[in-house]
Amino acid sequence: MRRALILLSAFLLSTVGAKAGVWETNCAGCHNGMVAPTKSKLLSKFHTKREFMAKVKEMVSKGKMPPGLPYGRAANELFGTKRVIHRPKRIHKKPMAVTSVAAVSDPYARYKKFFKPLPALPPIPADNPLTPEKVKLGKMLYYDPRLSRSKLISCNTCHNLALGGDDNQKTSLGDHWRTGGRNAPTTLNSGFLRVQFWDGRAPTLEEQAKGPLQAHVEMNSTPEIVVRRLKAIPEYVELFKKAFPGEKDPVTFENVVKAIAAFERTLNTPNSPFQRYLLGETNALSKEQKEGMALFVKYGCIACHNGPVLSDGRFHKFKWNDDPGRYRVTKNPADKYMFRTPQLLNVAVTAPYFHDGSVNSLEEAVKVMAQKELGKKLSNSEAKKIADFLRSLTGEVPLEARILPQLPGNNPQ
Amino acid sequence: MRRALILLSAFLLSTVGAKAGVWETNCAGCHNGMVAPTKSKLLSKFHTKREFMAKVKEMVSKGKMPPGLPYGRAANELFGTKRVIHRPKRIHKKPMAVTSVAAVSDPYARYKKFFKPLPALPPIPADNPLTPEKVKLGKMLYYDPRLSRSKLISCNTCHNLALGGDDNQKTSLGDHWRTGGRNAPTTLNSGFLRVQFWDGRAPTLEEQAKGPLQAHVEMNSTPEIVVRRLKAIPEYVELFKKAFPGEKDPVTFENVVKAIAAFERTLNTPNSPFQRYLLGETNALSKEQKEGMALFVKYGCIACHNGPVLSDGRFHKFKWNDDPGRYRVTKNPADKYMFRTPQLLNVAVTAPYFHDGSVNSLEEAVKVMAQKELGKKLSNSEAKKIADFLRSLTGEVPLEARILPQLPGNNPQ
Repeated sequence: MRRALILLSAFLLSTVGAKAGVWETNCAGCHNGMVAPTKSKLLSKFHTKREFMAKVKEMVSKGKMPPGLPYGRAANELFGTKRVIHRPKRIHKKPMAVTSVAAVSDPYARYKKFFKPLPALPPIPADNPLTPEKVKLGKMLYYDPRLSRSKLISCNTCHNLALGGDDNQKTSLGDHWRTGGRNAPTTLNSGFLRVQFWDGRAPTLEEQAKGPLQAHVEMNSTPEIVVRRLKAIPEYVELFKKAFPGEKDPVTFENVVKAIAAFERTLNTPNSPFQRYLLGETNALSKEQKEGMALFVKYGCIACHNGPVLSDGRFHKFKWNDDPGRYRVTKNPADKYMFRTPQLLNVAVTAPYFHDGSVNSLEEAVKVMAQKELGKKLSNSEAKKIADFLRSLTGEVPLEARILPQLPGNNPQ
Repeated sequence: MRRALILLSAFLLSTVGAKAGVWETNCAGCHNGMVAPTKSKLLSKFHTKREFMAKVKEMVSKGKMPPGLPYGRAANELFGTKRVIHRPKRIHKKPMAVTSVAAVSDPYARYKKFFKPLPALPPIPADNPLTPEKVKLGKMLYYDPRLSRSKLISCNTCHNLALGGDDNQKTSLGDHWRTGGRNAPTTLNSGFLRVQFWDGRAPTLEEQAKGPLQAHVEMNSTPEIVVRRLKAIPEYVELFKKAFPGEKDPVTFENVVKAIAAFERTLNTPNSPFQRYLLGETNALSKEQKEGMALFVKYGCIACHNGPVLSDGRFHKFKWNDDPGRYRVTKNPADKYMFRTPQLLNVAVTAPYFHDGSVNSLEEAVKVMAQKELGKKLSNSEAKKIADFLRSLTGEVPLEARILPQLPGNNPQ
């Protein structure tokens, strides 16, 4: 298969000469082999240009592919011959029409359909319903450093809600100034992610919360320490009773992480300029940001960074350093260097970037991604536009979540 | 002088037999030699019982000494003879009258005059006026971990406004998990203290703030690092311009500590039960707390713990461990083991206690103080009442101060 693809590429390259084809510049971003279907799959699925174009039209009409791109030329590249290069003007003289009113005043409006506005709340699991009592308790636990062995480190130490829900460190500093191997992702909007951690090893926020609480290099606590300390504080015992009514012994480690996860599901950041743009405020983005948005779609960033938090929640290969990513969890060689797509909301306030926090500049991070994941070398101007677009994704952390609780009790042993 | 005092004590002890005299039980608390005048001074100042009683009456009428104590008997002990012991009932059959209305329904109301309600603001230094712009900036700096070398530790790490303005640690953990030698005092109401630090080495909050920012074992920063990082964040530069209008280059280390100090002067905690009691809400304290308040006055705790935050801001001897206290600053042998009286507002939420954080229980701390500073061995019941009274000193941290700011910029180098 791989050899076939190489041969095909070589053939295509020879037909189009030194000039990059339409496929390379417009389609490969999304169809680069990481997101189905690959080029070879397309070739085996659609035997003729006609079949291919019928599908394209359907996808565009459903908003699953950007309108207005020279699909016909791409079809010629895939199924036709040299004709394409010599007579490009005959194909798609008029871009496919987008008829919304907004499009009239905002030529970029057609790109909106590739994005989804952020809902008020992420999915709520049936076994951990959101209640005000649980969220209140979870907030207190989130801010309480006494959950850590040293009583110094709270969830908020590394997921600081004054700093975009992370800590601006390459990799977090934890118990005894130890440091882990990966960059702390933001807790903001984390309830929308399909799986948690860079390697996706936790399926839920509840499971995620158990990690840092116990990790040697983070809070270095144990379920026993956590429960013992909380039980020593009568106000907490009361709050657990209210948050988990009907339970005989509600102060448990399972309920601690349930409450923290419940609070985290409220850490959603509405009202970003981009969110406002999506919801109809045409001038919420600058022209540069809109251009960045268009490039983000056209170059295929959107292939992985899609959905309400701009993450597909799936695993993609990113060979960056020796970190084998998801392989460490599954031991499956196919998972080597696979990482879950990080969300992009609030990305402008959560540097440094990548799983090792090795890149501090958003422009640089955009360039690296384009090069390594999409095979595109961006110009400085393009990277700047995409970064500017990403800066429009910074939303508002809810005020209620940012009000430091007055923690009960005092210094339990 | 010391020999004379010993001889006098021996004489007095011989006259009163094994029974503790009125002086020991009622007056020595305040007049134990740490607070002027000492017993020997009293004896040299007032040559007769009459002169002494005239002064006592004046002081009581001014509210500077508690009413109703057997001053006559004390006068007899100091200036008279054995008569006192044999005929105590002839002296002060009626306690000195307190005629306020509150006293009718609240027999403890007469103790109120030894205390001062907390003003809305502490004294504001002329060279650092409070402005909303400066307080806003100071709050951001207080919460910003990027002022520390590691970018992990903010003022709020050790002076956590969710935990009573301190960190519940014996001694704080700082840069590289190093620890200092003394317990972190709360920043709450700290603007009311005459001097800062346990050894009083900083006269102002401005000077104080320079300490932890630079201390090797705390934030381990430098003025250069702080100013460089802040200047790299345009939003901060704007905020400094607004907070320090008219200054050409307002982003300076001096202005950083001015802004932090300005914010700290807003960290005052009104509406504690005791504050409400002082302001007229008779039922804001329980009977036990009122009894504790009375003991606090009668036993002389008030001699040092007075004024709006229950600290005289002066230095008193407390030989507890090898820490030489203020001597380390002045090298004056007279300052050995001298520490500035800590405030008592919010003491119930700022364990552990003493300059080394060696005592975790409030009752235990009260007992140690009574024993070592007042020469009194408290019963468990007395210590409990005084501790209960101290628990009524927990006030409300202003909501505005507790709202985490959204810090500008991202990860300056």
